[in-house]
Amino acid sequence: MKSSRLICTACGKEYSDECFRCECGEPLEVVIEMKRTVKIQFHRSGILESFSDLLPGLEDKNFLSLGEGFTPLTRLDDKDSSGMELYAKNESINPTWSFKDRGSYLAVLDAIRRGYNHIGTVSTGNMAASVAAYGKRAGLKTTILVSDSIPDEKVSPISIYGSRIIKVTGDYGQLYYDSLEAGKNSGIYFANSDVPMRVEGSKTIAFEIFIQLGERVPDFVIVPTSSGGNVRGIEKGFRELRDSKLSVSIPRMIVAQAAGCSPIDLAFSSRASTITRNAVLRMLKRNGGATVAIDESSILKAQKSLANNGLFVQPASAVAYAAISKLREEIDVRKALVVVVLTGSGLKYPAILKEHPSFIESTSLEFLEEILKGNQNFID
Amino acid sequence: MKSSRLICTACGKEYSDECFRCECGEPLEVVIEMKRTVKIQFHRSGILESFSDLLPGLEDKNFLSLGEGFTPLTRLDDKDSSGMELYAKNESINPTWSFKDRGSYLAVLDAIRRGYNHIGTVSTGNMAASVAAYGKRAGLKTTILVSDSIPDEKVSPISIYGSRIIKVTGDYGQLYYDSLEAGKNSGIYFANSDVPMRVEGSKTIAFEIFIQLGERVPDFVIVPTSSGGNVRGIEKGFRELRDSKLSVSIPRMIVAQAAGCSPIDLAFSSRASTITRNAVLRMLKRNGGATVAIDESSILKAQKSLANNGLFVQPASAVAYAAISKLREEIDVRKALVVVVLTGSGLKYPAILKEHPSFIESTSLEFLEEILKGNQNFID
Repeated sequence: MKSSRLICTACGKEYSDECFRCECGEPLEVVIEMKRTVKIQFHRSGILESFSDLLPGLEDKNFLSLGEGFTPLTRLDDKDSSGMELYAKNESINPTWSFKDRGSYLAVLDAIRRGYNHIGTVSTGNMAASVAAYGKRAGLKTTILVSDSIPDEKVSPISIYGSRIIKVTGDYGQLYYDSLEAGKNSGIYFANSDVPMRVEGSKTIAFEIFIQLGERVPDFVIVPTSSGGNVRGIEKGFRELRDSKLSVSIPRMIVAQAAGCSPIDLAFSSRASTITRNAVLRMLKRNGGATVAIDESSILKAQKSLANNGLFVQPASAVAYAAISKLREEIDVRKALVVVVLTGSGLKYPAILKEHPSFIESTSLEFLEEILKGNQNFID
Repeated sequence: MKSSRLICTACGKEYSDECFRCECGEPLEVVIEMKRTVKIQFHRSGILESFSDLLPGLEDKNFLSLGEGFTPLTRLDDKDSSGMELYAKNESINPTWSFKDRGSYLAVLDAIRRGYNHIGTVSTGNMAASVAAYGKRAGLKTTILVSDSIPDEKVSPISIYGSRIIKVTGDYGQLYYDSLEAGKNSGIYFANSDVPMRVEGSKTIAFEIFIQLGERVPDFVIVPTSSGGNVRGIEKGFRELRDSKLSVSIPRMIVAQAAGCSPIDLAFSSRASTITRNAVLRMLKRNGGATVAIDESSILKAQKSLANNGLFVQPASAVAYAAISKLREEIDVRKALVVVVLTGSGLKYPAILKEHPSFIESTSLEFLEEILKGNQNFID
């Protein structure tokens, strides 16, 4: 089996593959040794098999896979007729209906390889359900740490998978670090949001986009961003495609955040010293990327507009689609090839549906034909 | 373009492809003309392209596709160690998270080919969302007829796609027929549950299973069944694989229904004259299939058990998994190759989660390590 080296994204210190995070506090990243000839292909037998030349040397255990990845790349209309070629990478079509499944599968394999019998994560949403599903399927003990403010309706779609769920009071950001430390001392592999295997999982989104576009590289990839593991992984994927001579360029990465909670956008816009202390900001600076913050009403509008294209996504994903208009104001995207990453299903957050009014008519069987022929109210 | 012939599943009368249902009241079915050499393959470019030799001659419009199909076939443990080789065909990983998307895509293409600018359906669940998504994406007017007893929380995930929604009072079964008639008179293509294009869509589930099993045919395929369009389509798919010499046998089809609503099971068990008046019953008789009715508590148990394998499905899908135990009592399934079809996502029906108790612990950051090391309550 190939062994992986890890390198700190900030200070460059190297580690064997037994660590989760650098001593300096910054995230580690897997170093892929480039071969002379690299092959990637696209088939349903699993992301690890398809992209093995560019993924860490994990032993593929197909019976633990749930069929993650291989999600559709769906064409979207360019309503502004600027000649933009626009696609959505629909990550809601995954085993637990979000992109998190890619990294969870790799993390479970990594945990087993390292001899862990217990996996965990810190999340109240997509990642919690994903780790719960994959951990349980693999027969590992599974512990999910959630914020104590989590509403009941978000707990039950996690607990159905049979994990231990613990509400933790105190600073939720600190819980990320404390869980890694406590995990080290109690034999639990914490597959948190930007650990190396999550970044490796997100790389496969880039590989698939490249193949689905007929071996073309987008000009821009817009990614809804929270911790940044996903956007970093996608950029790393395109970078490795280029480094292995399969492509010649890297897309500019656009980090999209809701205006109400946009720390990366704020830090990047201020061009402050925080850039040296954040892996996403360092990536954006190197990559020539940008950040966009989207207000609430634009998010709702984008969610509705995507649904009118047949794609019902969670609000966090709609942020990436809403970012396109904002991008047009700042960057010339005419004739650009753009991919928005839709990270999770709209069914994950049904509460938002209250913000979209439903108009329902009524009739009886007797008058059905009349109402069908009559004045037709089509709602957008 | 190939034109399709339709034939009545009961009286055998032939129709051009402009009809939805036979004058005798029974469903029509597409007749596929068998070529000398038939090819099926498996790639992400669309079900129609992959299986074109065995599908009606519709013009593929890839930009209307949402990436339906190509769902994972996931290995499940045989807990009873009877040597059964068991798989789940996970249809929840579809663009609107149910198997309905296969037929909806073909129905939209068929509607466009026939010159319709308006599509509809009668449904309060998966099919409603699916037709709404595909119809709207194709730029068709889209009308969904729902039962007047539909709860609000089931309307909003349909209306997000932007359809006209009409509650119809009166007999819901009759609405199926009345909508076809009213549709004919008002220019609306009603893609109801067992119209020919839905059966054609479900055929692709059979084609994929066959390929995913390495060109093997299962001994049994268990399908949760309401109107029967899906189970009939899957059987037709395996029949056409055999007729085109790609395989040599057809699986026995097992119709699984919840005991509270199991008309097909009741009719099939009674071996009454209804068999001549129901397309599913005729298929089962010809096929050597069987029906199984499952009680409420077994459904819940099956839903939980599937979730412990990483698969959170709606209760209707859990019925198919629960059917395995019942099947063991009646048929020798030792060493059998069995596929259960999981038709839709558990997120579609979150109300059921209340039936599965959640146990949540609490702690603070300070005591996190202690609670992680301490007495561990792992819930199944």
